[in-house]
Amino acid sequence: MKIDISYGSGGKQTGDLINRVFLKHFHNKTLNRLEDSAVVSLEGKIAYTTDSFVVTPLFFKGGNIGKLAVCGTVNDLSMMGAVPRYLTAGFIIEEGMELETIDEIAHSMALSAKEAGVKIVAGDTKVVEGNGGVYINTSGIGEVKKRGISISGCKPGDAVILSGNLGEHHAAILSHRMGIENQIPSDCAPLTSIVQNLLDSKIRVHCMRDVTRGGLATVLNEAADQSSCRIEIWEENLPVSQKVKGFCGILGLDPLYMANEGKMIAVVPGNQAQKALKAVQNSKYGTNARIIGTIMEGNGVMMKTRLKGLRSIDLLYGEGLPRIC
Amino acid sequence: MKIDISYGSGGKQTGDLINRVFLKHFHNKTLNRLEDSAVVSLEGKIAYTTDSFVVTPLFFKGGNIGKLAVCGTVNDLSMMGAVPRYLTAGFIIEEGMELETIDEIAHSMALSAKEAGVKIVAGDTKVVEGNGGVYINTSGIGEVKKRGISISGCKPGDAVILSGNLGEHHAAILSHRMGIENQIPSDCAPLTSIVQNLLDSKIRVHCMRDVTRGGLATVLNEAADQSSCRIEIWEENLPVSQKVKGFCGILGLDPLYMANEGKMIAVVPGNQAQKALKAVQNSKYGTNARIIGTIMEGNGVMMKTRLKGLRSIDLLYGEGLPRIC
Repeated sequence: MKIDISYGSGGKQTGDLINRVFLKHFHNKTLNRLEDSAVVSLEGKIAYTTDSFVVTPLFFKGGNIGKLAVCGTVNDLSMMGAVPRYLTAGFIIEEGMELETIDEIAHSMALSAKEAGVKIVAGDTKVVEGNGGVYINTSGIGEVKKRGISISGCKPGDAVILSGNLGEHHAAILSHRMGIENQIPSDCAPLTSIVQNLLDSKIRVHCMRDVTRGGLATVLNEAADQSSCRIEIWEENLPVSQKVKGFCGILGLDPLYMANEGKMIAVVPGNQAQKALKAVQNSKYGTNARIIGTIMEGNGVMMKTRLKGLRSIDLLYGEGLPRIC
Repeated sequence: MKIDISYGSGGKQTGDLINRVFLKHFHNKTLNRLEDSAVVSLEGKIAYTTDSFVVTPLFFKGGNIGKLAVCGTVNDLSMMGAVPRYLTAGFIIEEGMELETIDEIAHSMALSAKEAGVKIVAGDTKVVEGNGGVYINTSGIGEVKKRGISISGCKPGDAVILSGNLGEHHAAILSHRMGIENQIPSDCAPLTSIVQNLLDSKIRVHCMRDVTRGGLATVLNEAADQSSCRIEIWEENLPVSQKVKGFCGILGLDPLYMANEGKMIAVVPGNQAQKALKAVQNSKYGTNARIIGTIMEGNGVMMKTRLKGLRSIDLLYGEGLPRIC
């Protein structure tokens, strides 16, 4: 059955859609009440964020737009040292979307929410003209367990830990679009257990950020800029799978600028680097973590290449890959 | 200057857009940090909601999509007896959008946020292919000041208060689309002061709901259904302006099913009805409030017509007006 514009009228069909799809998958005591707002309890400082997801294709190897929408927002909360607790989900559905497709997306969202330990407590549905696509916005709130983690918190002497291989989400999406058959799945995943393990290990984390749009280069530039420091990374330590390496080689892509959806950096005091690395490696989705660089006085981001040269790593300029997330 | 797909890459242009438009208008200590999540403080129970806005035209008499996006979410929080505190804003911008247009929309959002007493503390921007339009999602959190207000809280003997004239947002949008010149502006407004006055007057409010998509008929049906009661309203008490009446007459529209963006119902104990009415009438955006009906044992929504007949008021079925909010 296809969704038409009447499903966005706020009337009977909107109610049907909510009952048949969203309540079926997301049901919980708070959401079931269908009030104008959810009423929830949280302790202490609250982390609060939002992200919209517009990726095409909607389904790709390793995930879909729904899984992405839950993991992306969960990860943004985690990066502030927070335990994600509640999400909202706003669906903008294009006419012609199959009910079964939205059902499958919602199912994925429910599974990812369960894995990440969050509840979807409020939502909204709109229907617009179009070609059967969907945009999903999620917002999230969580309880801040460790204060002071910040993109401006990097200090000279700190070590930069990367939680795993670069470029996999980007390569998965691009492969799908180009019709290339390979075995590269998106890395889309919640980073909650990595963060939990870092905090449980009493690491004095200075900065965490998930590595998404714009890739590692963008995240490092933001950190260097906001922390007024220089970041040096080491090319030989950057984890990239053979498959992604091959894919990048053929297409002339640079993994430093490629999007990921289940990777993060953690910037920690140099003397805690090994302990932090172990904490990350002992986490789900962190087994391939590496120490990839160091924080120094100065500014900008530099990479020591395999040939021992120094290459300046600038911000992404231009198009990149549209609708990657 | 037109926004193209590169502004959604997460790189340099995305940063430019954030700085030149969103930070310029929304700046506050929390947002300025540009962390992955905002970190905020709230006391007690938290109301939490989301809404997406897809209205065309983007600008209309009495408002625009930005004002709507702030007021809509603020109102959903208010309806739970909460004081709205923080919003997030997610922009999905279609390629070809003029930077000046987004600037004007963001400016409106900042003004509405100021009026409603909320801060926009986190945001997200995506750019998709399209025809220069924009979708805006907002989520909001607030502090619940009065517990137990619920769509399931109506009780026999309660009075139903409507905060003002019906149908104005709907008529404004439709007039614009049809190219009809009239003086009907959208009623788009924050309902914070009405709610504040009701709570300050110690009214034991049982249920509040803003009257948006689907109109009064939809809201009353939801209340009757969730509260397991019958709602009777009186046609002669329903406030509709002469201009909207005339507009509806020509087009055969029913104000009961038309969308509003600055109207609400409050269901209060019968013996507090007059006091509650005064509290609403003494509020900005509530001067034309009326007691429009009563809660009874039974089920469904009935209207006593001007001719003393009884008409059953069902849920909206079918298309309504797409992209009204």
